[in-house]
Amino acid sequence: MPELRKDPIVGRWVIISTDRAKRPTDFTRDSVKLKGGFCPFCYGNERKTPPEIQAYRPNQNGGPPQRDTSGWTVRVVPNKFPALGIEGNLDRQAEGMFDKMNGVGAHEVIIETNDHNATLATLPPKRIEDVLWTYRDRILDLKKDRRFKYILIFKNHGDSAGASLEHAHSQLIALPVVPIYVAEEIEGAKQYYLYKERCVFCDIARQESEAGVRVVSENEDFLTIAPYAPRFPFETWILPKQHESAFENSSSHMFENLAKAIRTHIEFMPKLTKTAGFEWGTGFYINPTPPEEAAKFLREASVEEPAAATVG
Amino acid sequence: MPELRKDPIVGRWVIISTDRAKRPTDFTRDSVKLKGGFCPFCYGNERKTPPEIQAYRPNQNGGPPQRDTSGWTVRVVPNKFPALGIEGNLDRQAEGMFDKMNGVGAHEVIIETNDHNATLATLPPKRIEDVLWTYRDRILDLKKDRRFKYILIFKNHGDSAGASLEHAHSQLIALPVVPIYVAEEIEGAKQYYLYKERCVFCDIARQESEAGVRVVSENEDFLTIAPYAPRFPFETWILPKQHESAFENSSSHMFENLAKAIRTHIEFMPKLTKTAGFEWGTGFYINPTPPEEAAKFLREASVEEPAAATVG
Repeated sequence: MPELRKDPIVGRWVIISTDRAKRPTDFTRDSVKLKGGFCPFCYGNERKTPPEIQAYRPNQNGGPPQRDTSGWTVRVVPNKFPALGIEGNLDRQAEGMFDKMNGVGAHEVIIETNDHNATLATLPPKRIEDVLWTYRDRILDLKKDRRFKYILIFKNHGDSAGASLEHAHSQLIALPVVPIYVAEEIEGAKQYYLYKERCVFCDIARQESEAGVRVVSENEDFLTIAPYAPRFPFETWILPKQHESAFENSSSHMFENLAKAIRTHIEFMPKLTKTAGFEWGTGFYINPTPPEEAAKFLREASVEEPAAATVG
Repeated sequence: MPELRKDPIVGRWVIISTDRAKRPTDFTRDSVKLKGGFCPFCYGNERKTPPEIQAYRPNQNGGPPQRDTSGWTVRVVPNKFPALGIEGNLDRQAEGMFDKMNGVGAHEVIIETNDHNATLATLPPKRIEDVLWTYRDRILDLKKDRRFKYILIFKNHGDSAGASLEHAHSQLIALPVVPIYVAEEIEGAKQYYLYKERCVFCDIARQESEAGVRVVSENEDFLTIAPYAPRFPFETWILPKQHESAFENSSSHMFENLAKAIRTHIEFMPKLTKTAGFEWGTGFYINPTPPEEAAKFLREASVEEPAAATVG
């Protein structure tokens, strides 16, 4: 069972793997290279992943769903190398002046398509919608587990972003504590509300939509922007235009419009620059591309044809 | 002049370069490759850097110091591609609901040795001491400038850590605002003090010295540890054993002992793992190497002979 440990100065929790300690020589290969082109996320290899949690199988012809077989369009499985263990209790305790608990949590993989060569940018909007509905299903299911305080869905695209398998997938991690960045966002939004009596995200959406200079794209429900103070070149945010605090409560037309917006990604952090000592030491970022320039570039690059959508 | 912009939600400031916007195609080459082995930090090339800010020239034979000539052991120059501009005022102002100021600050390079092939790990302790005294000189000088609120000295070692020149150097950045991570550390230490009436760093040093399991090395003044909740494999901290709040106020025997301790580095964050979507989204880190194992490995690897010191 991994362990959660708290930094006693800033209160940041980290996950420490305790099953097998990695020594420096174990880090020489960065990503898992699979032998002979074998991919556990392709049709026919369903038994090579841990047993499926859920899947969309649109053409079942009335028969009962066949778990761990082909025919799916989106499939969710437990991560084979989970960062957290799903069983057991937190068992919070002290270790001298320090604080720890069991590394309890969920770590799932959402396989976004059966097509090994597809990406979110090349999938039809309807298939992206299926992925979003799958996210919702998993959030609603895991929210019932009272041990979990926060659920993050994220996607690493490409080797330099840390993806170890090339078949399009996202990951879900359910955590027993609220992560420090999320707590800071909530606290910041609360302070803004106490002072202004308005939602900071709604204010940003309204001002950016009017100013236009940092807008990448806009549809009926969502505004895609380059944020005013981005940490990375071409970082983009997708904001709902109506106040909405929970993704899983979105209406179905919002899923439809989010699928359209997502071709430029939900909170998109391109790894074009390397973060180094300065950023790690301070949380202060140096960004060589102003968001106004990034938005202009992305606006001009954002066309509806899938052929050009790889820019996003 | 670069611009400092504040994220309106979490209050994080970022530096936005406004002089020349980088487009995606500008990021293809990660580091500056110099033609024909030319190094601006080697003897004889002093005129290829911006004019020197200070230098140690131990054997001047009584003559006046010769700026921008050879004969130095440590040399400080302005960064040729500074992230911040040294001239001007902050000129804090609003941009609609957002906040910005001029990107005023210092960005200096400390060339740690004239030997192109040396590293901090292979330099004699006395030469490391010279580098530490240089840090102190620069901090004391820049502290006089009332525009600056925080000074960070950091070192990127190796290509994957973001170093663009291989000749051993560190960098100094003086900032007009306290960075968010530093503010959080100060706030955390303050909360601990309000509750315990003791310094959290002193408590950590005492407990770790007694427990021993996360100790890498120890001398009269400094304790090198693998912290209890490290973000990265083999992350190490060097803590002063006596309560001391400012590096630049250290006594000379502390500089001597810090030089000895520093062969395992001051706050050492090896880039063995890739941080990806999960870490960026949450500030929650997954560390595959428990600090007890890391400390054991580093204790066994830490010998006094420079030949083996490259492990640190």
